[in-house]
Amino acid sequence: MQSQRRIAEYGVQVGIMEKGPRNSITDVAGVRVGHCTLDHGDLRTGVTVVVPGDTCPCGEKPVAAAHIVNGYGKTVGTMQIQELGVLETPIALTGTLNVGRVQDALVQIMLERCSERGKPVTSINPVVGECNDSKLTDIARRPVHTEHVRMAMERASEDFMEGSVGAGKGMVCFGLKGGIGSASRMVEVGGTAYTLGMLVLSNFGTLTDLVVGGKQIGRRIDTIVKAREVAERGSIMMIVATDLPVDARQLGRILRRAPVGLARLGGYIGHGSGEVVIGFTTANTMPPEEEAAVSQMRVMREDLLDGPFRAIAECAEEAVLNSMICAETTTGYQGNVVTSLKDIWMQVWA
Amino acid sequence: MQSQRRIAEYGVQVGIMEKGPRNSITDVAGVRVGHCTLDHGDLRTGVTVVVPGDTCPCGEKPVAAAHIVNGYGKTVGTMQIQELGVLETPIALTGTLNVGRVQDALVQIMLERCSERGKPVTSINPVVGECNDSKLTDIARRPVHTEHVRMAMERASEDFMEGSVGAGKGMVCFGLKGGIGSASRMVEVGGTAYTLGMLVLSNFGTLTDLVVGGKQIGRRIDTIVKAREVAERGSIMMIVATDLPVDARQLGRILRRAPVGLARLGGYIGHGSGEVVIGFTTANTMPPEEEAAVSQMRVMREDLLDGPFRAIAECAEEAVLNSMICAETTTGYQGNVVTSLKDIWMQVWA
Amino acid sequence: MQSQRRIAEYGVQVGIMEKGPRNSITDVAGVRVGHCTLDHGDLRTGVTVVVPGDTCPCGEKPVAAAHIVNGYGKTVGTMQIQELGVLETPIALTGTLNVGRVQDALVQIMLERCSERGKPVTSINPVVGECNDSKLTDIARRPVHTEHVRMAMERASEDFMEGSVGAGKGMVCFGLKGGIGSASRMVEVGGTAYTLGMLVLSNFGTLTDLVVGGKQIGRRIDTIVKAREVAERGSIMMIVATDLPVDARQLGRILRRAPVGLARLGGYIGHGSGEVVIGFTTANTMPPEEEAAVSQMRVMREDLLDGPFRAIAECAEEAVLNSMICAETTTGYQGNVVTSLKDIWMQVWA
Amino acid sequence: MQSQRRIAEYGVQVGIMEKGPRNSITDVAGVRVGHCTLDHGDLRTGVTVVVPGDTCPCGEKPVAAAHIVNGYGKTVGTMQIQELGVLETPIALTGTLNVGRVQDALVQIMLERCSERGKPVTSINPVVGECNDSKLTDIARRPVHTEHVRMAMERASEDFMEGSVGAGKGMVCFGLKGGIGSASRMVEVGGTAYTLGMLVLSNFGTLTDLVVGGKQIGRRIDTIVKAREVAERGSIMMIVATDLPVDARQLGRILRRAPVGLARLGGYIGHGSGEVVIGFTTANTMPPEEEAAVSQMRVMREDLLDGPFRAIAECAEEAVLNSMICAETTTGYQGNVVTSLKDIWMQVWA
Repeated sequence: MQSQRRIAEYGVQVGIMEKGPRNSITDVAGVRVGHCTLDHGDLRTGVTVVVPGDTCPCGEKPVAAAHIVNGYGKTVGTMQIQELGVLETPIALTGTLNVGRVQDALVQIMLERCSERGKPVTSINPVVGECNDSKLTDIARRPVHTEHVRMAMERASEDFMEGSVGAGKGMVCFGLKGGIGSASRMVEVGGTAYTLGMLVLSNFGTLTDLVVGGKQIGRRIDTIVKAREVAERGSIMMIVATDLPVDARQLGRILRRAPVGLARLGGYIGHGSGEVVIGFTTANTMPPEEEAAVSQMRVMREDLLDGPFRAIAECAEEAVLNSMICAETTTGYQGNVVTSLKDIWMQVWA
Repeated sequence: MQSQRRIAEYGVQVGIMEKGPRNSITDVAGVRVGHCTLDHGDLRTGVTVVVPGDTCPCGEKPVAAAHIVNGYGKTVGTMQIQELGVLETPIALTGTLNVGRVQDALVQIMLERCSERGKPVTSINPVVGECNDSKLTDIARRPVHTEHVRMAMERASEDFMEGSVGAGKGMVCFGLKGGIGSASRMVEVGGTAYTLGMLVLSNFGTLTDLVVGGKQIGRRIDTIVKAREVAERGSIMMIVATDLPVDARQLGRILRRAPVGLARLGGYIGHGSGEVVIGFTTANTMPPEEEAAVSQMRVMREDLLDGPFRAIAECAEEAVLNSMICAETTTGYQGNVVTSLKDIWMQVWA
Repeated sequence: MQSQRRIAEYGVQVGIMEKGPRNSITDVAGVRVGHCTLDHGDLRTGVTVVVPGDTCPCGEKPVAAAHIVNGYGKTVGTMQIQELGVLETPIALTGTLNVGRVQDALVQIMLERCSERGKPVTSINPVVGECNDSKLTDIARRPVHTEHVRMAMERASEDFMEGSVGAGKGMVCFGLKGGIGSASRMVEVGGTAYTLGMLVLSNFGTLTDLVVGGKQIGRRIDTIVKAREVAERGSIMMIVATDLPVDARQLGRILRRAPVGLARLGGYIGHGSGEVVIGFTTANTMPPEEEAAVSQMRVMREDLLDGPFRAIAECAEEAVLNSMICAETTTGYQGNVVTSLKDIWMQVWA
Repeated sequence: MQSQRRIAEYGVQVGIMEKGPRNSITDVAGVRVGHCTLDHGDLRTGVTVVVPGDTCPCGEKPVAAAHIVNGYGKTVGTMQIQELGVLETPIALTGTLNVGRVQDALVQIMLERCSERGKPVTSINPVVGECNDSKLTDIARRPVHTEHVRMAMERASEDFMEGSVGAGKGMVCFGLKGGIGSASRMVEVGGTAYTLGMLVLSNFGTLTDLVVGGKQIGRRIDTIVKAREVAERGSIMMIVATDLPVDARQLGRILRRAPVGLARLGGYIGHGSGEVVIGFTTANTMPPEEEAAVSQMRVMREDLLDGPFRAIAECAEEAVLNSMICAETTTGYQGNVVTSLKDIWMQVWA
């Protein structure tokens, strides 16, 4: 894997908690991430998958939750997650208008997987998140097909690129190049170390609002890159993985703290910024229908949730910064150019 | 205890499931119900408590959930139940304008209980539901005080009266006398028998809509009692107890089916009819703060919830009918008279 | 148009309110419905569209709301409706695994429409509801493509077929043939007559529970058709149109009463029965971005909502019965046969 | 009125928007605030009322909304606000265990007001928010009675004190003295200037997290005041007034951005920190029952909400800082001392 320099290596310390070994969502055992990027002609788009083990509609399903911060978005799958508290497919991320095709691709892939396992299914809840990449890609073309989703799934690994890659290829964050970023934190509960990790698809924020490490560098950058002052019209998808012993209600409480990290970056959840948080824990599963009528779930003492609450806020803040600092300055649709934070870092950080 | 003739004894069979031994919320082990009735001068009001074991803010707390069907009401305590998924006081029911005083009474009683247990508390989430009894009582007087709540708690028992008693004293249901009613159903899960019971405080419905056992007897009654056709302006509180192995999410799903029973009676959740469902399970508790960081919760296979779903609908329908058929024709505030279904039963049921 | 005999013509009177001229969702001025049915080989599926005027993402958007009764389903588009309170595409209904393709088709059609109108868009919130038709169709094939959605849109009319047509082709309701049904009611507010109409895609219920016109005929039918007793594993989509002067909050309150009608039919919102209500009013629109900063919305006095509440319950009950009585006995995938209520009506109704 | 030095006068500039003339919730025409403080013996508590004109249950009711950020709290009245979208009493704030008494006091005062107006009522939805002041007051005594609420209402004025006054008397924020604070911002919509103001009752946060004007001064203060490191176990109540033309849905969207301001101060919505936002607009009212069946409501173009979104975040941040910098170092129950930020300002701000 090509090595990328992340925000911590630029000297920005986010929060006070201990990071996981990779400082990534894949620090949660069993979680992998894969990309497929489309980068030719007028296209700067793609798909990214977060794979929670071998989750499928015909097996054990990890406990999951979802939180809609701002529902101006086209994410699919959250309704059933909120009702049943489980995840039954990998989570795919892509550009807004690709959602139908990626959803259909996940259905196809899951149909095949369950057939192979000898347990064909007729109901599947594909989970697909999206942000609008129309500034850098010809969004009307909807070029992400089953083959691309399949490729992203096949490439899924504990090591993965951040920045302008996969679904992140065409994203813009605080007027600069955004995309895929990740971070993780360790949380101790009752003497045991657990991990909480996040992966973001970042596409929100107004440049002049940007705060990094407590510094309002957005206003300074604005004088350099002269980003057109546009309304916060992006969106951010936040995918959370953990091995904490929580039920769906507790996990939901954790997810509701994710926007704290965005606010610390200067975001304010703009009207056009659809913000959705989807999470799962590998610590608890719900059994398939043929199994035991009653099963055990491990839950943590409620007041100890302050650890995960703090962790998710730190992860959100750092994952967005990683998505920006790892991205490449990109020229896209209709000649639009979006600058990467890393290319102006020396000018704005002192 | 004075014996009351309940709806099943009138030949009305509600649903198809097996009933608990008492056909009552107190079929759930540990649950007790107590009343204190105020019936003098212009007052026809009172308080009823549902006591789930020795629940208090300083001990183990049963897993709980709440569902707001129609939020035109003044119930207190549901916000915290929905957030934390536990119950920490008995549930009190009373007339609308008494809520503040009954809430304060629960606080006082819990402060005392936790002090006696050597674990004084500074935070208490009293749960108080209400319906508006202004047709039969001088509601502005707010006569329910700490002594009455205390009395209801002391009297709490597995055997309790239904109809125009306790909080039910001044209630009107489908233009007839309503009040307190209960019912229960047995649910088999994995070879084990569990119980789901409900207690209602019934105060909703328009007479001409009333359906009993599939018969639209409301229109027939209307020609007899000449109830003033008024808007459905009541409310109903539905308290659910169970020993099913469910977490807060699953319990919430069960509670959301309670209105099915009301619809079968001809109700349509009128604008003025605040409808709230609050439930708890004795099968799972969340530990207090000094205890183990991680604990076990028992959950049931999701597809087996159809049993409890059916049970809660049947309980709601039958509990309301019990509240009506056990009530007494009552003369109240400003000479208002509300007839009991039992006093006209012979005329309308054939 | 081929004439169909509807439930009222069988002598079943649902409710007490006045019906619209067509007793159909298209009684609301401007609303049209179109179908495309796939009925060959192992396929018994299709798509139905409810078209609210010429709604599109680039024009005025009707005020809308959505209510999730049971979120075990794959409906897309409700998240944004709940956030922004408007509808920006027609509403399409189809079989569960077709959702991604139909969503993509709606995107394509809206892209074209807005381009033609000289206002190209990059964000579209397609609304697609679904029920699972796997008993009668080879669901894994996902045969509904853009051409079929386009055809349904082109055929959209005030007159449309009910029963086993369009998305309703493969649906099963209370163990009998279900599908598309509609009904409407007139509501007077302040001396003016308004209309509320509903279209359902019915695919829920257990045969032995079925109640028609207060009669528990399901148990009787069960002895005739010997439907395999299966768990309530369908779903129902309820689409509501009205011209009532309501804002999104008031419309949401109306939608939450829709399940009342299902309960009166004997349904209890089973675990597997995803139930979603989506509605819009033609009385209020939100302006596009280039228009006036402040606009007027007409709202009705809150206590007068009892009329619409009663209306939606009656519409739901009657629309489901119309979906059943208009359907044809159907042989489908793997030789499964599902009987129509109309073919056994004479045997069970006396 | 005694003049207080507020955070802007200390050189801390919060945000970029124009402030209202008073930089206070009372910049919204018709809104007044009053306090009654109890400060003797072991008591450091009180009540604060936000009075939106002459709102009462028998007259026109301003459009309102409520948002529960973290439902670990005992606030009453939000359920009905969320259902009906209106406010019908002033909003009272107090210490946690006083809620029942203050609720009852509001009922009494509203009963009297409506009687005087010749429109006696039997249903009232009192709105009472709370934070836990047990560190500085003997919370079990519940000393706030009807006379105190009445006094706070009588004193309500456009000018009011901030800091350790009224309900704020016993509050602790980021380990320092908290309490009542306010701020406002001007928002231009379509060429017209509107106002959005907030009043907070601040009682949340961990000292080491505190960020002021982008500086992490909490860690610095921690070395000075040696606050016991305690879990974030407070709560914050945020009351929002505006004259923006919004309906309940739009107002709800605004309220959901309030936590952004708290996150910028270093908060992370701790488990024990009940956070509730309640707001109303004076621009729209819902008519009482005897009035016109249909009325007009003014709404703003959805994409222009970015102004109010930014405004509420700035108000929340500045109102909390005002609550802290205006407070006095306080010695309370059991000799607990809580230092005011203003008394250590010179040592920590450079």
